[in-house]
Amino acid sequence: MTTRDRISPERIEHVGIAVQSLEQAVPLYRDILGLEWLGEEIVESEQVRVAFFRLGEVKVELLEPLSPDSPIARFLEKRGQGIHHIALKVEEIEGELKRLSDSGIQLIHDQPKRGAKGAKVAFIHPQSTKGVLYELCEPRTDRETDR
Amino acid sequence: MTTRDRISPERIEHVGIAVQSLEQAVPLYRDILGLEWLGEEIVESEQVRVAFFRLGEVKVELLEPLSPDSPIARFLEKRGQGIHHIALKVEEIEGELKRLSDSGIQLIHDQPKRGAKGAKVAFIHPQSTKGVLYELCEPRTDRETDR
Repeated sequence: MTTRDRISPERIEHVGIAVQSLEQAVPLYRDILGLEWLGEEIVESEQVRVAFFRLGEVKVELLEPLSPDSPIARFLEKRGQGIHHIALKVEEIEGELKRLSDSGIQLIHDQPKRGAKGAKVAFIHPQSTKGVLYELCEPRTDRETDR
Repeated sequence: MTTRDRISPERIEHVGIAVQSLEQAVPLYRDILGLEWLGEEIVESEQVRVAFFRLGEVKVELLEPLSPDSPIARFLEKRGQGIHHIALKVEEIEGELKRLSDSGIQLIHDQPKRGAKGAKVAFIHPQSTKGVLYELCEPRTDRETDR
Protein backbone atom coordinates (compact mmCIF):
# COMPACT_ATOMS: atom_id res chain seq x y z
CA MET A 1 0.00 0.00 0.00
CA THR A 2 1.36 3.42 -0.91
CA THR A 3 0.70 6.76 0.78
CA ARG A 4 -1.45 7.76 -2.19
CA ASP A 5 -4.04 5.17 -1.20
CA ARG A 6 -4.85 7.08 1.97
CA ILE A 7 -7.57 9.66 2.15
CA SER A 8 -6.73 12.95 3.91
CA PRO A 9 -9.53 14.02 6.25
CA GLU A 10 -8.77 17.43 7.72
CA ARG A 11 -10.95 17.10 10.81
CA ILE A 12 -14.31 15.85 12.06
CA GLU A 13 -16.92 18.04 10.38
CA HIS A 14 -19.78 16.82 12.54
CA VAL A 15 -21.08 13.97 14.68
CA GLY A 16 -24.62 12.86 13.80
CA ILE A 17 -26.86 11.72 16.66
CA ALA A 18 -30.25 10.06 16.14
CA VAL A 19 -33.01 11.29 18.46
CA GLN A 20 -36.74 10.65 18.69
CA SER A 21 -37.60 14.29 19.23
CA LEU A 22 -35.66 17.52 18.72
CA GLU A 23 -38.13 19.22 21.04
CA GLN A 24 -36.88 17.01 23.87
CA ALA A 25 -33.21 16.77 22.88
CA VAL A 26 -32.41 20.41 22.05
CA PRO A 27 -32.91 21.69 25.64
CA LEU A 28 -30.55 18.97 26.92
CA TYR A 29 -27.77 19.98 24.54
CA ARG A 30 -28.30 23.74 24.86
CA ASP A 31 -29.27 24.23 28.51
CA ILE A 32 -27.48 21.37 30.28
CA LEU A 33 -24.53 20.25 28.12
CA GLY A 34 -23.96 23.93 27.25
CA LEU A 35 -23.45 23.65 23.49
CA GLU A 36 -23.97 26.67 21.24
CA TRP A 37 -27.17 26.20 19.20
CA LEU A 38 -26.61 27.12 15.54
CA GLY A 39 -29.98 26.49 13.93
CA GLU A 40 -32.21 23.90 12.34
CA GLU A 41 -32.78 22.63 8.83
CA ILE A 42 -34.94 20.07 7.05
CA VAL A 43 -33.03 17.69 4.75
CA GLU A 44 -35.73 16.35 2.42
CA SER A 45 -33.52 13.71 0.79
CA GLU A 46 -32.98 12.02 4.17
CA GLN A 47 -36.41 12.88 5.57
CA VAL A 48 -34.90 14.38 8.70
CA ARG A 49 -35.05 17.57 10.69
CA VAL A 50 -31.57 18.52 11.92
CA ALA A 51 -30.52 20.77 14.81
CA PHE A 52 -26.91 22.01 14.75
CA PHE A 53 -24.66 22.84 17.69
CA ARG A 54 -21.07 24.09 17.87
CA LEU A 55 -18.53 22.24 20.02
CA GLY A 56 -15.03 23.51 19.26
CA GLU A 57 -14.24 22.90 15.59
CA VAL A 58 -16.87 20.13 15.40
CA LYS A 59 -20.63 20.44 14.89
CA VAL A 60 -23.05 18.16 16.68
CA GLU A 61 -26.07 17.35 14.52
CA LEU A 62 -29.21 15.98 16.15
CA LEU A 63 -31.29 14.07 13.60
CA GLU A 64 -35.04 13.57 14.04
CA PRO A 65 -36.87 11.44 11.44
CA LEU A 66 -39.75 13.06 9.53
CA SER A 67 -41.19 9.81 8.18
CA PRO A 68 -40.93 6.05 8.81
CA ASP A 69 -38.96 5.78 5.54
CA SER A 70 -36.11 7.93 6.85
CA PRO A 71 -32.84 6.04 7.42
CA ILE A 72 -32.87 7.62 10.88
CA ALA A 73 -36.30 6.11 11.64
CA ARG A 74 -34.96 2.68 10.72
CA PHE A 75 -31.84 3.25 12.85
CA LEU A 76 -33.99 4.26 15.86
CA GLU A 77 -36.16 1.18 15.42
CA LYS A 78 -33.14 -1.13 15.28
CA ARG A 79 -30.68 0.50 17.72
CA GLY A 80 -32.54 3.15 19.67
CA GLN A 81 -31.35 6.71 20.20
CA GLY A 82 -27.61 7.33 20.05
CA ILE A 83 -24.61 8.22 17.91
CA HIS A 84 -25.40 7.56 14.25
CA HIS A 85 -22.33 8.65 12.26
CA ILE A 86 -19.09 10.63 12.16
CA ALA A 87 -18.53 12.99 9.23
CA LEU A 88 -14.96 13.56 8.04
CA LYS A 89 -14.25 16.87 6.30
CA VAL A 90 -12.44 16.28 3.01
CA GLU A 91 -11.28 18.64 0.28
CA GLU A 92 -12.21 16.81 -2.90
CA ILE A 93 -14.80 14.14 -2.21
CA GLU A 94 -14.90 12.43 -5.62
CA GLY A 95 -11.17 11.66 -5.51
CA GLU A 96 -11.37 10.44 -1.90
CA LEU A 97 -14.27 8.10 -2.74
CA LYS A 98 -12.25 6.66 -5.61
CA ARG A 99 -9.24 6.14 -3.32
CA LEU A 100 -11.41 4.28 -0.80
CA SER A 101 -13.03 2.17 -3.49
CA ASP A 102 -9.62 1.33 -4.98
CA SER A 103 -8.51 0.22 -1.49
CA GLY A 104 -11.38 -2.28 -1.36
CA ILE A 105 -13.57 -0.21 0.95
CA GLN A 106 -17.31 -0.68 0.36
CA LEU A 107 -19.19 2.58 -0.18
CA ILE A 108 -22.88 3.24 0.36
CA HIS A 109 -22.67 6.08 -2.19
CA ASP A 110 -20.19 5.91 -5.09
CA GLN A 111 -21.06 9.49 -5.97
CA PRO A 112 -21.74 12.32 -3.51
CA LYS A 113 -25.21 13.68 -2.95
CA ARG A 114 -26.33 16.95 -1.35
CA GLY A 115 -26.68 16.96 2.43
CA ALA A 116 -27.38 19.65 5.02
CA LYS A 117 -26.19 23.15 4.08
CA GLY A 118 -25.62 22.01 0.50
CA ALA A 119 -22.50 19.97 1.36
CA LYS A 120 -21.44 17.11 -0.91
CA VAL A 121 -21.74 13.97 1.22
CA ALA A 122 -21.29 10.21 0.83
CA PHE A 123 -21.30 7.36 3.33
CA ILE A 124 -18.84 4.50 3.73
CA HIS A 125 -20.37 1.12 4.51
CA PRO A 126 -19.79 0.26 8.20
CA GLN A 127 -18.91 -3.31 7.23
CA SER A 128 -15.66 -1.88 5.86
CA THR A 129 -14.95 0.31 8.90
CA LYS A 130 -15.42 -2.04 11.88
CA GLY A 131 -19.01 -1.02 12.57
CA VAL A 132 -18.60 2.78 12.42
CA LEU A 133 -20.73 4.69 9.91
CA TYR A 134 -18.40 7.31 8.41
CA GLU A 135 -19.58 10.09 6.14
CA LEU A 136 -17.25 12.02 3.86
CA CYS A 137 -18.33 15.65 3.74
CA GLU A 138 -17.10 18.40 1.45
CA PRO A 139 -18.80 21.56 2.68
CA ARG A 140 -20.21 23.91 0.04
CA THR A 141 -17.83 26.75 -0.79
CA ASP A 142 -18.93 30.34 -1.34
CA ARG A 143 -18.05 29.93 -5.01
CA GLU A 144 -20.75 27.34 -5.56
CA THR A 145 -24.14 28.56 -6.73
CA ASP A 146 -27.39 27.29 -5.25
CA ARG A 147 -28.80 24.24 -6.91
CA MET B 1 -33.02 27.00 34.65
CA THR B 2 -30.21 29.54 34.89
CA THR B 3 -27.06 29.79 32.83
CA ARG B 4 -25.06 28.57 35.83
CA ASP B 5 -26.68 25.14 35.48
CA ARG B 6 -24.93 24.55 32.17
CA ILE B 7 -21.61 22.86 31.89
CA SER B 8 -19.02 24.46 29.59
CA PRO B 9 -17.29 21.84 27.42
CA GLU B 10 -14.53 23.45 25.38
CA ARG B 11 -14.41 20.85 22.62
CA ILE B 12 -14.55 17.13 21.93
CA GLU B 13 -11.42 15.66 23.52
CA HIS B 14 -11.80 12.27 21.89
CA VAL B 15 -14.23 9.82 20.35
CA GLY B 16 -13.97 6.27 21.75
CA ILE B 17 -14.54 3.39 19.34
CA ALA B 18 -14.87 -0.25 20.46
CA VAL B 19 -13.01 -2.77 18.28
CA GLN B 20 -12.35 -6.49 18.55
CA SER B 21 -8.70 -6.17 17.57
CA LEU B 22 -6.31 -3.23 17.37
CA GLU B 23 -4.13 -5.32 15.11
CA GLN B 24 -6.90 -5.31 12.51
CA ALA B 25 -8.29 -1.82 13.14
CA VAL B 26 -5.09 0.26 13.32
CA PRO B 27 -4.11 -0.33 9.65
CA LEU B 28 -7.60 0.78 8.55
CA TYR B 29 -7.35 4.06 10.46
CA ARG B 30 -3.70 4.76 9.62
CA ASP B 31 -3.29 3.47 6.06
CA ILE B 32 -6.76 3.95 4.56
CA LEU B 33 -8.60 6.64 6.56
CA GLY B 34 -5.28 8.52 6.79
CA LEU B 35 -5.32 9.45 10.48
CA GLU B 36 -2.09 10.29 12.31
CA TRP B 37 -1.20 7.46 14.72
CA LEU B 38 -0.16 8.85 18.12
CA GLY B 39 0.59 5.73 20.15
CA GLU B 40 -0.88 3.02 22.33
CA GLU B 41 -1.52 2.59 26.04
CA ILE B 42 -2.98 0.03 28.40
CA VAL B 43 -5.61 1.36 30.81
CA GLU B 44 -5.70 -1.23 33.57
CA SER B 45 -8.75 0.20 35.35
CA GLU B 46 -10.85 -0.38 32.23
CA GLN B 47 -9.01 -3.51 31.09
CA VAL B 48 -8.45 -2.05 27.62
CA ARG B 49 -5.63 -1.46 25.20
CA VAL B 50 -6.08 1.91 23.48
CA ALA B 51 -4.65 3.21 20.19
CA PHE B 52 -4.73 6.99 19.69
CA PHE B 53 -5.03 8.93 16.43
CA ARG B 54 -5.14 12.67 15.71
CA LEU B 55 -7.97 14.09 13.60
CA GLY B 56 -7.90 17.88 13.77
CA GLU B 57 -8.36 18.97 17.39
CA VAL B 58 -10.01 15.64 18.27
CA LYS B 59 -8.38 12.31 19.13
CA VAL B 60 -9.85 9.04 17.95
CA GLU B 61 -9.34 6.27 20.53
CA LEU B 62 -9.71 2.66 19.46
CA LEU B 63 -10.50 0.46 22.48
CA GLU B 64 -9.72 -3.26 22.51
CA PRO B 65 -10.81 -5.27 25.56
CA LEU B 66 -8.12 -7.14 27.51
CA SER B 67 -10.51 -9.33 29.47
CA PRO B 68 -14.17 -10.42 29.38
CA ASP B 69 -14.76 -8.18 32.44
CA SER B 70 -13.87 -5.03 30.52
CA PRO B 71 -16.83 -2.69 29.90
CA ILE B 72 -15.69 -2.71 26.26
CA ALA B 73 -16.00 -6.51 26.09
CA ARG B 74 -19.56 -6.24 27.38
CA PHE B 75 -20.34 -3.47 24.86
CA LEU B 76 -18.97 -5.58 21.99
CA GLU B 77 -21.06 -8.54 23.10
CA LYS B 78 -24.23 -6.48 23.26
CA ARG B 79 -23.83 -4.02 20.37
CA GLY B 80 -20.89 -5.18 18.25
CA GLN B 81 -18.04 -2.98 17.09
CA GLY B 82 -18.74 0.73 16.74
CA ILE B 83 -18.72 4.14 18.39
CA HIS B 84 -18.67 3.73 22.17
CA HIS B 85 -18.51 7.24 23.65
CA ILE B 86 -17.77 10.93 23.11
CA ALA B 87 -15.46 12.66 25.59
CA LEU B 88 -16.03 16.35 26.31
CA LYS B 89 -13.02 18.37 27.45
CA VAL B 90 -13.83 20.35 30.58
CA GLU B 91 -11.76 22.63 32.79
CA GLU B 92 -12.83 21.63 36.27
CA ILE B 93 -14.48 18.24 36.27
CA GLU B 94 -15.69 18.10 39.88
CA GLY B 95 -17.71 21.32 39.49
CA GLU B 96 -19.15 20.18 36.16
CA LEU B 97 -20.23 16.84 37.65
CA LYS B 98 -21.99 18.67 40.46
CA ARG B 99 -23.75 20.96 37.97
CA LEU B 100 -24.99 17.94 36.00
CA SER B 101 -26.12 16.16 39.14
CA ASP B 102 -27.92 19.28 40.36
CA SER B 103 -29.71 19.42 36.96
CA GLY B 104 -31.07 15.91 37.52
CA ILE B 105 -28.62 14.20 35.16
CA GLN B 106 -27.71 10.65 36.21
CA LEU B 107 -23.97 10.04 36.47
CA ILE B 108 -22.12 6.73 36.23
CA HIS B 109 -19.28 8.23 38.30
CA ASP B 110 -20.00 10.93 40.88
CA GLN B 111 -16.27 11.43 41.31
CA PRO B 112 -13.65 11.38 38.55
CA LYS B 113 -11.24 8.49 38.16
CA ARG B 114 -7.98 8.28 36.21
CA GLY B 115 -8.24 7.39 32.53
CA ALA B 116 -5.76 7.24 29.65
CA LYS B 117 -2.80 9.64 29.93
CA GLY B 118 -3.70 10.33 33.55
CA ALA B 119 -6.75 12.44 32.70
CA LYS B 120 -9.55 12.83 35.25
CA VAL B 121 -12.60 11.20 33.67
CA ALA B 122 -16.22 10.44 34.56
CA PHE B 123 -19.13 9.11 32.53
CA ILE B 124 -22.70 10.42 32.30
CA HIS B 125 -25.42 7.76 32.19
CA PRO B 126 -26.79 7.46 28.64
CA GLN B 127 -30.33 7.26 30.02
CA SER B 128 -29.95 10.97 30.82
CA THR B 129 -28.50 11.89 27.42
CA LYS B 130 -30.84 10.23 24.89
CA GLY B 131 -28.72 7.12 24.44
CA VAL B 132 -25.30 8.77 23.99
CA LEU B 133 -22.51 7.78 26.39
CA TYR B 134 -20.72 11.05 27.23
CA GLU B 135 -17.47 11.19 29.17
CA LEU B 136 -16.24 14.33 30.87
CA CYS B 137 -12.47 14.55 30.57
CA GLU B 138 -10.09 16.94 32.29
CA PRO B 139 -6.68 16.23 30.79
CA ARG B 140 -3.73 16.08 33.18
CA THR B 141 -1.82 19.33 33.35
CA ASP B 142 1.96 19.56 33.52
CA ARG B 143 1.62 20.80 37.09
CA GLU B 144 0.16 17.51 38.30
CA THR B 145 2.55 14.93 39.66
CA ASP B 146 2.33 11.25 38.82
CA ARG B 147 0.10 9.22 41.08
